[in-house]
Amino acid sequence: MGNIHGHSFRIATFGESHGPALGVVIDGCPPRVPFDLAFLRSELARRRPGQSKLTTQRQEGDAPEILSGLSPDGLTLGSPIAIVIRNVDQRSSAYTEMKSAYRPSHADFTYDAKYGIRAVEGGGRSSARETAARVAAGALAKTVLKHACGATITAWVESVADIRMPAATKTPSLKQVEASPTRCPHPATAQRIEARIHAARADGDSVGGVICCVISGLPAGLGSPVFDRFEAELAKAMLSLPATKGFELGSGFAGTLLKGSEHNDVFVKKGGRIRTLTNRSGGTQGGITNGEDVVFRVAFKPTATVLKPQQTVGPDGKATSLSARGRHDPCVLPRAVPIVEAMAALVAVDHWIRDRGQNAPFGRCGRKA
Amino acid sequence: MGNIHGHSFRIATFGESHGPALGVVIDGCPPRVPFDLAFLRSELARRRPGQSKLTTQRQEGDAPEILSGLSPDGLTLGSPIAIVIRNVDQRSSAYTEMKSAYRPSHADFTYDAKYGIRAVEGGGRSSARETAARVAAGALAKTVLKHACGATITAWVESVADIRMPAATKTPSLKQVEASPTRCPHPATAQRIEARIHAARADGDSVGGVICCVISGLPAGLGSPVFDRFEAELAKAMLSLPATKGFELGSGFAGTLLKGSEHNDVFVKKGGRIRTLTNRSGGTQGGITNGEDVVFRVAFKPTATVLKPQQTVGPDGKATSLSARGRHDPCVLPRAVPIVEAMAALVAVDHWIRDRGQNAPFGRCGRKA
Amino acid sequence: MGNIHGHSFRIATFGESHGPALGVVIDGCPPRVPFDLAFLRSELARRRPGQSKLTTQRQEGDAPEILSGLSPDGLTLGSPIAIVIRNVDQRSSAYTEMKSAYRPSHADFTYDAKYGIRAVEGGGRSSARETAARVAAGALAKTVLKHACGATITAWVESVADIRMPAATKTPSLKQVEASPTRCPHPATAQRIEARIHAARADGDSVGGVICCVISGLPAGLGSPVFDRFEAELAKAMLSLPATKGFELGSGFAGTLLKGSEHNDVFVKKGGRIRTLTNRSGGTQGGITNGEDVVFRVAFKPTATVLKPQQTVGPDGKATSLSARGRHDPCVLPRAVPIVEAMAALVAVDHWIRDRGQNAPFGRCGRKA
Amino acid sequence: MGNIHGHSFRIATFGESHGPALGVVIDGCPPRVPFDLAFLRSELARRRPGQSKLTTQRQEGDAPEILSGLSPDGLTLGSPIAIVIRNVDQRSSAYTEMKSAYRPSHADFTYDAKYGIRAVEGGGRSSARETAARVAAGALAKTVLKHACGATITAWVESVADIRMPAATKTPSLKQVEASPTRCPHPATAQRIEARIHAARADGDSVGGVICCVISGLPAGLGSPVFDRFEAELAKAMLSLPATKGFELGSGFAGTLLKGSEHNDVFVKKGGRIRTLTNRSGGTQGGITNGEDVVFRVAFKPTATVLKPQQTVGPDGKATSLSARGRHDPCVLPRAVPIVEAMAALVAVDHWIRDRGQNAPFGRCGRKA
Repeated sequence: MGNIHGHSFRIATFGESHGPALGVVIDGCPPRVPFDLAFLRSELARRRPGQSKLTTQRQEGDAPEILSGLSPDGLTLGSPIAIVIRNVDQRSSAYTEMKSAYRPSHADFTYDAKYGIRAVEGGGRSSARETAARVAAGALAKTVLKHACGATITAWVESVADIRMPAATKTPSLKQVEASPTRCPHPATAQRIEARIHAARADGDSVGGVICCVISGLPAGLGSPVFDRFEAELAKAMLSLPATKGFELGSGFAGTLLKGSEHNDVFVKKGGRIRTLTNRSGGTQGGITNGEDVVFRVAFKPTATVLKPQQTVGPDGKATSLSARGRHDPCVLPRAVPIVEAMAALVAVDHWIRDRGQNAPFGRCGRKA
Repeated sequence: MGNIHGHSFRIATFGESHGPALGVVIDGCPPRVPFDLAFLRSELARRRPGQSKLTTQRQEGDAPEILSGLSPDGLTLGSPIAIVIRNVDQRSSAYTEMKSAYRPSHADFTYDAKYGIRAVEGGGRSSARETAARVAAGALAKTVLKHACGATITAWVESVADIRMPAATKTPSLKQVEASPTRCPHPATAQRIEARIHAARADGDSVGGVICCVISGLPAGLGSPVFDRFEAELAKAMLSLPATKGFELGSGFAGTLLKGSEHNDVFVKKGGRIRTLTNRSGGTQGGITNGEDVVFRVAFKPTATVLKPQQTVGPDGKATSLSARGRHDPCVLPRAVPIVEAMAALVAVDHWIRDRGQNAPFGRCGRKA
Repeated sequence: MGNIHGHSFRIATFGESHGPALGVVIDGCPPRVPFDLAFLRSELARRRPGQSKLTTQRQEGDAPEILSGLSPDGLTLGSPIAIVIRNVDQRSSAYTEMKSAYRPSHADFTYDAKYGIRAVEGGGRSSARETAARVAAGALAKTVLKHACGATITAWVESVADIRMPAATKTPSLKQVEASPTRCPHPATAQRIEARIHAARADGDSVGGVICCVISGLPAGLGSPVFDRFEAELAKAMLSLPATKGFELGSGFAGTLLKGSEHNDVFVKKGGRIRTLTNRSGGTQGGITNGEDVVFRVAFKPTATVLKPQQTVGPDGKATSLSARGRHDPCVLPRAVPIVEAMAALVAVDHWIRDRGQNAPFGRCGRKA
Repeated sequence: MGNIHGHSFRIATFGESHGPALGVVIDGCPPRVPFDLAFLRSELARRRPGQSKLTTQRQEGDAPEILSGLSPDGLTLGSPIAIVIRNVDQRSSAYTEMKSAYRPSHADFTYDAKYGIRAVEGGGRSSARETAARVAAGALAKTVLKHACGATITAWVESVADIRMPAATKTPSLKQVEASPTRCPHPATAQRIEARIHAARADGDSVGGVICCVISGLPAGLGSPVFDRFEAELAKAMLSLPATKGFELGSGFAGTLLKGSEHNDVFVKKGGRIRTLTNRSGGTQGGITNGEDVVFRVAFKPTATVLKPQQTVGPDGKATSLSARGRHDPCVLPRAVPIVEAMAALVAVDHWIRDRGQNAPFGRCGRKA
């Protein structure tokens, strides 16, 4: 269970890291949205392994095949859209030691505890490979958002280990983010991060960090005040990603150091609508978007796979030593950027449709807008 | 929408801050659980306003009435349990200015944007008053957990503003937490926090802070590896609470500063079962509990209501000044402790039942255990 | 579990037949709908026991108390609406024999099998009393429908035992339905049904029958083509009612006797829109409304409670004889009419909101229509 | 929306009749179930077009490809199982007239009303082709049921048009059902049905009928008493199938002709457990299984596609005449038998898992049974 996400824009993902394929079925996409296959491919390319020297050298073309849900001229039909991505470069032999030793801070032990069986090669559903399906669904969600209200989503690497870029005064552009393989838009910081990741790899070790993400252009009024707060569903979406350890909205943990009189966002009228002068709230109040940027941060732990020998036990409880041999990212942050964006897009579209109905953004019940 | 929580142990809450009553319907509680009314009352008392000089002086007895779901001898029937709590001390006149001015960092504006109507008195569903219903449901969830697997939940105030207690080496007892009205179990820190809250109140201002929570005694195997990770649902539950700005599991944001080789939790066999030497993971791996303590932190912003005059606008967009007059907490942290515990209990029970079935913990399908 | 209904307009009901109260929490009602308390009361009165000599003589005022979700001037706030109805006339002593004998075709045995415990008085959740909460929610659903699209719902008793009214050429009016305590709008048939019910009561026996229901005025386009077909959710809603044994849409079982060329509904243009000449489809095609009347029938078995002695066993499996003593309806059909309407209204509103969004019918996201 | 079915054993189906492929993702299957690929294939073969002269001559091998969720030795992993079936024999040209004319009693018009776009070839999601995905999921559901409790599901054709087999005194065997291409297990009736279907085809017309289905071997205690009654979810599942017009449980509509004293099922102790002497209830009481056979019937209308010319209108409302040319079944009943069984299996497994938990039937939380 637990492989379906969303209330009104729902996705079901499937696929083991080292099985035949992975993919997603998207249920609840509004009809008459122009599906952008080139964009889908470019989003997958941003997440793909092997895209730079910073990432795992596993080679996956990640070529998506669309099995349903589109008209011959590429419009969504309002029916489920199934996307399949074949696995190509599975070197399972690298994982044979996983049968007899639980990798520390991996899900091997908990899978055995829960299921009494596991895909011993490559981590099964807990592999970062599963996120390719999320990025595919997120690409469509971004397209829907664009047509629905022009909203855009941008994430970037803000820190790796103790290297942190200066606070951004404005949201960086996609081009700025993509300028460095680190996906840190501050060139000097990016260089230092790059060096640190290389050092970690050389050392057989790994590093973590923080990704910042901004959703711009959402109207006020999305979300709801109790359990399904906009930020609550964002938090769930982010903590559903492998390796995440924390989530902050707006001022976050640092906001606990301020007084109320310092923290409150003053309302003003600006450009014909009600705005706030500051955005410590992070774009929502009472769980509902207020029309300002939704700003949040996600903490990623250092990759659990390290090439140094580690003490552990096997399923029988016997102590053993383990040295990973699989191909892995010494730092997941650069590749996690499009994944964070994808989950944010899925949450935003889901809330949009709850509010506006299944046939938004192109008019409702067959009445073309 | 958005007032129902959970998949297999579900609750529906209702009630405006200044309406006749608030309450909760609990659907999916296993049968034959001894309902503990005294415990329900004591949990509500821990959240109740007016319990100390640190909290709002609104006086609410918070006397729960159970309308359904129990046998004459107080066992759950497996049918819905409805709990109603009447509002008693609503002084609505304190809120008349809310009609003509949007309170900064409150939900007045977003309610108008979403609903085009709002309960102008007391914040409607966004009031902390709504959380009484969660605490009531959480009391039952804690009782179910106790009978199901002996698990217990303890939260406490770790920091207020910049005052932070030393890292706890072991989970404090309920008695230690309740020893101070601050609910900080470190006496010296508690004293400083108390003084700081009094100072904030005297100043017409407010302060925020961080609550730490531990779930002890869960078996390995609860949760699932993708969207419905144990920690993802915890994160959603916590961010669904008013005034929360962040969530961390285990090492959290600080964990991003470590290397993988430092961060990983080494497996060992101890006391007949597989354990980890450290707990930077915070009790889950791959979204599934590993049998260690689930440890998480929640950031609460400084209360948005301050008695100092603030600039804002009204629904018409005209600039105005606002001074709050309602009775409010200068710091929500002490009262938020039982609320955080309640949400944690609800998440844990929900996962337990998904795994073990609707008739756990007392045997299944009528076969008494 | 299983006490929550709906996807976007959701209700949670609670309450045992002989407990303190029953009620409902309605989540997802659009804001700014004028709540019609008089209509709520009149709908409850149509379902109430003791309303005529045909029904159980249990006396319940069924006075609803609204605990939340309304503005002072009676508009819905978009927040949950809780309605509580106190039980007044519980004569539990009439049920003492239920402890030691399973009533045939009642849920006593299956409750014990599932829960290992049951409310031995009055059938707990399986009592028809539970449906008062559905009628309360249905009253609001009808009000929303009226404002959303002017749709109306009318049900009536078509047959009792082998007494069947002639096929109605047009939907009867509420006045015609209410003219007889039988709720059969054909006066001659109504008289015969009345006599038959009285005869069954005099005989300590019971009778069943068929209710027909029409939803008029829905736009084309509600529903969806696969699992959540409009008629599939109607079928579930109807079979969720106590004592129901069957559901038919449009031509129903009799339609299986026709050839395709006889059964198909021919499309024509009429009054500026596309209509069908006949309505054997019953108002949907491919699970989606086509703008014609939604017409369906529900079969109700003869009431399981009969006053004649019956053979049965007790929880220990020992054979025993049972004569019911509680107050019961010799025929549930007349009182079931408003209940069928209520469930139909809940299904229709739920589909409306899925299609049009949470803030229909009064404009979306705060933009007043 | 509406392409996901189930609460704890969930399936998401996808695929247009004339698109590249159709398929299903199954989420919530217990781990360690031996997946039976040969059985999956044989179930698909029972539904496949072109299997006899009674069915459409479209040729589809319906070769399933399993993309995920299995261990190398064919055990379920507890992760989602994706099954894809490629479409092979799409002759789209047969459907060109569907662009300019709404086929009577098909979903062409309602799709346009809802979505403003449709797959003009072959009916898109409303084609019976979609049900192949359900049969695939149902094959796994049957396998889970077998291992969980030994329950089996058998459906057969009871009537076509006015030809009805004598009431079966016991559930026919699969062999008896499969002995005739009609799937009517009564040889003499089967012959007459076969002749009638051939006559309908020769006449360019179509016929409907009734399928009976029995679920044997379920334990008492599955289901719940209010909205999610076992039979309510069966009714929804059946009415979610194309061409269905009615559902009956046990005595059904005919039961409305009996008195309560005739209809009630008397309890007795037999073979060490509590049984009923008769089964007019159809296997549930109060929405919960009682351990007897679950017996239900489903009405299918005559196929809407007839080769005779029919009056209709086009999207512009202009009157036109239409003669279908596509390959179609003159009677859907024979091929619908495995589809009805599949949906019944999905409902039963879903209720089983709600009751017993996600890791049934092979022990829970990693404790191998």
